[in-house]
Amino acid sequence: MSFAKLDDHCRGLSALDHALSILGTDEAVNMAPGGGESRAEAMATLSGMYHRQATDPKVRDWLEAAKAEDLDPEQEIAIGELERSYVNMTCLPSDFVERKMRTSMKSEQLWRKARPKGDWTSFQPALEEVVTMMREEAAMRAEVLGLAPYDALMEQFDPGNRTASINPVFAELKAFLVDFVPEALAVQEENLSRRPLKPLSGDYPVERQKALGLAMMQAVGFDMNHGSLSVSDHPFCGGVPSDVRMTTRYRTDEFLPALMGILHETGHGLYEQNLPKDWAHWPSGKARGMSIHESQSLFVEKQIGRNPTFWRFALPLVDDHLKEAWTMEDLLPHVHQVKRGKIRVDADEVTYPLHVILRYELEQELLSGAIETKDLPEAWDAKMQESLGISTLDDPQNGPMQDVHWPSGAFGYFPSYTLGALMAAQQWATILKTNPDVDAQIGSGDFDQVNAWRRDNIWSKASTASTPDILRNATGEALNPAWFIAHLKARYGK
Amino acid sequence: MSFAKLDDHCRGLSALDHALSILGTDEAVNMAPGGGESRAEAMATLSGMYHRQATDPKVRDWLEAAKAEDLDPEQEIAIGELERSYVNMTCLPSDFVERKMRTSMKSEQLWRKARPKGDWTSFQPALEEVVTMMREEAAMRAEVLGLAPYDALMEQFDPGNRTASINPVFAELKAFLVDFVPEALAVQEENLSRRPLKPLSGDYPVERQKALGLAMMQAVGFDMNHGSLSVSDHPFCGGVPSDVRMTTRYRTDEFLPALMGILHETGHGLYEQNLPKDWAHWPSGKARGMSIHESQSLFVEKQIGRNPTFWRFALPLVDDHLKEAWTMEDLLPHVHQVKRGKIRVDADEVTYPLHVILRYELEQELLSGAIETKDLPEAWDAKMQESLGISTLDDPQNGPMQDVHWPSGAFGYFPSYTLGALMAAQQWATILKTNPDVDAQIGSGDFDQVNAWRRDNIWSKASTASTPDILRNATGEALNPAWFIAHLKARYGK
Ligand SMILES: [Zn+2]
Ligand SMILES: [Zn+2]
Repeated sequence: MSFAKLDDHCRGLSALDHALSILGTDEAVNMAPGGGESRAEAMATLSGMYHRQATDPKVRDWLEAAKAEDLDPEQEIAIGELERSYVNMTCLPSDFVERKMRTSMKSEQLWRKARPKGDWTSFQPALEEVVTMMREEAAMRAEVLGLAPYDALMEQFDPGNRTASINPVFAELKAFLVDFVPEALAVQEENLSRRPLKPLSGDYPVERQKALGLAMMQAVGFDMNHGSLSVSDHPFCGGVPSDVRMTTRYRTDEFLPALMGILHETGHGLYEQNLPKDWAHWPSGKARGMSIHESQSLFVEKQIGRNPTFWRFALPLVDDHLKEAWTMEDLLPHVHQVKRGKIRVDADEVTYPLHVILRYELEQELLSGAIETKDLPEAWDAKMQESLGISTLDDPQNGPMQDVHWPSGAFGYFPSYTLGALMAAQQWATILKTNPDVDAQIGSGDFDQVNAWRRDNIWSKASTASTPDILRNATGEALNPAWFIAHLKARYGK
Repeated sequence: MSFAKLDDHCRGLSALDHALSILGTDEAVNMAPGGGESRAEAMATLSGMYHRQATDPKVRDWLEAAKAEDLDPEQEIAIGELERSYVNMTCLPSDFVERKMRTSMKSEQLWRKARPKGDWTSFQPALEEVVTMMREEAAMRAEVLGLAPYDALMEQFDPGNRTASINPVFAELKAFLVDFVPEALAVQEENLSRRPLKPLSGDYPVERQKALGLAMMQAVGFDMNHGSLSVSDHPFCGGVPSDVRMTTRYRTDEFLPALMGILHETGHGLYEQNLPKDWAHWPSGKARGMSIHESQSLFVEKQIGRNPTFWRFALPLVDDHLKEAWTMEDLLPHVHQVKRGKIRVDADEVTYPLHVILRYELEQELLSGAIETKDLPEAWDAKMQESLGISTLDDPQNGPMQDVHWPSGAFGYFPSYTLGALMAAQQWATILKTNPDVDAQIGSGDFDQVNAWRRDNIWSKASTASTPDILRNATGEALNPAWFIAHLKARYGK
């Protein structure tokens, strides 16, 4: 039976995926310094093995044969998702895949060297090669999938996301933010003039911060029987659904960045831990994509973790672990700090979408040929001026050279961040409609109902529908920026 | 070119091996409690993938074609070793391999349940099934390899080891030990009557013990750039040559067992770390086998770590880390304690070989049909009486039920332990001939020359020759028990 053959096929891929995830986590957390070379070789070989197995022509035959078999609805969805991922993986000729690997690796290496010096001139030709290649890739994907080129790229990260529906949403959001950022900054300034910012600094031993982080993770629902928290240079959430490996990094002179980072990664972890077990080795049983994943992490970080009510529960926990006695009035201005800046990853929830929309617009222009790589510094600067009133012309390191995405060939990925933020706000608003007590629950450290909604409407859905359909089914409407805008107004407005 | 195809083939197997090693280590050290089920599934799937790739019929064709190509001597050795391992892996029909997996898994599970109760009666039928199966396996391996059945089993663990050469060695050793154990015990008693044993107990925080262990590992040559030390329930040395993962376990009321365990595993680790890099993904570049591996761990544990001279260097290090002030006279009686006992894994270096020789004799009798599984309790008891004067008749838990090897289908493995001890003594004696200062060097914490000899003669040889040939090339003679016997006499005799 072909369905059984595909089940074995998925089991093999899932085992390789399991190995690659754990090897990746192990590399960041446990690997000896000199172990990198052979680890890189092993992981490259296993990735090649994964790709060869995933794109095996026999899969196409099994898929066709399985569709003729007597399948139940879950099996049909599983076959559909597997086919989607098969088509996405096989739509590029293998010599192109190899060329892409080489080109993007070269450009990424160059980027790592050139970025610290802000050396745009030597970086530009390498990025140009990537852009040329991405135009080819987008055209090939578009051809096979019957989509517009940029949509075909986004399809890898968020199945179903289309510029036709995102463009008006981002346009509305951008228009709002350009006016709202100054308003939020004015509100903040006024507040600080009445009560100056008290630095949240002190001496916080790592062990205490870790105990606090673990307590917070578990409070919001993380299952320590299926996960752990360790330390790495760059915090991430890795591992596998049955064993989610979260990491963070600590500074002993401040606790808030590590704590907020832990809350963010806990959001990713909750999604993974609560995916359906039965279909774990099939694509339909895995997390849907980048924007829904980010909606889950941002939900915990922003809707819960930066919610003032949350701190009624969280502040005593912080005081308890860190032997401090912060007041709400001292803490919240840090949790809600707004700042214009050049750097996306340092941005707060008010200014962040402007960084993303800038990239979303520019990468489409790069792909369509409306601008060329050499025009990037000026184009970037113009948009930064327009949206945040900041110039990056003399500072390419903190302008178009700041992200790894483009040099590594990831185009169509950036919108996921802000789509995630919008979806998180929309999910929260939906919960609020049926459960008006949710704020009070969170204030008392009770996350059962909010998690039950997310389990029923997001986590358990895994990849059984497209990104927009999961959102629509969960919230009763298509992506609507009004919820995020209302959220910002309530938290940061006059 | 077929050699290049085989090179790719080995690279794939080595990557899977890398993944399985790290996943195994991760499971013991870092895995969340609930991660076991999906880890077991992933590892079983990857092992199956390994087996399928390793036994691919195409490998046979490539091997034949490669032999006709123009190969340099290293390539010829590589091809020879790959063929050896291919033949060893393909000599059993796949339905037998599956049956073996099921039978031994069932018997091992039963053993885990029955052993704590010493329930021989319910364990016996399961072991009987394994014995029947192992007789079949030995016959099949013997047929393909043109070896005697027991030799064919040993061939998997130590290529080239044959009963014809081991039998006289073990016979001589056993005859010696049956007389020598009482002598060593009498010497010990006399010493203790003059100076009673002072317990090595106290309060030793884990962090201090770990720092001591790390200092000791590095002193004897372990490269922390390519390895690490962590904690697990059952100490082992895992990982990969570029990143050796050693583990130990600590008790806070004593330090010697953990420290000696670390020295033992460091011996395994040194071997792995110093294997030749160029052939790392070929079988010829991997560690030779169980007995040479054990010779390396025992060399560090016994020839170095239980050498009284070593403690001139080590004792100040211990005192320093543990804030103690032991005297040599208090410490050495613990390091050299001899004790008759029922349990192999608790045995000292004097009595240990008797435990091994007993198993070596019994497993041959079981395989040949000279005894049956039901006769084991009596046969075991008789041999224990004969060699150590201990009866196990009423205590099967600590008699034939004590080891996991037989229930899990590992026959032909036991001799490796004592062969390792004999080889370690023979290697030490060889070093001593050309470097009479080796004792003084070790006493001052200088391990450069002893390690240089081992690197040149053992580590760098990897699997480029058979086990007996590596020993002969390194020491100038075949396995000779005289060196181990002389070692015991010098350390424990009158
Ligand atoms: Zn995230
Ligand atoms: Zn060992």
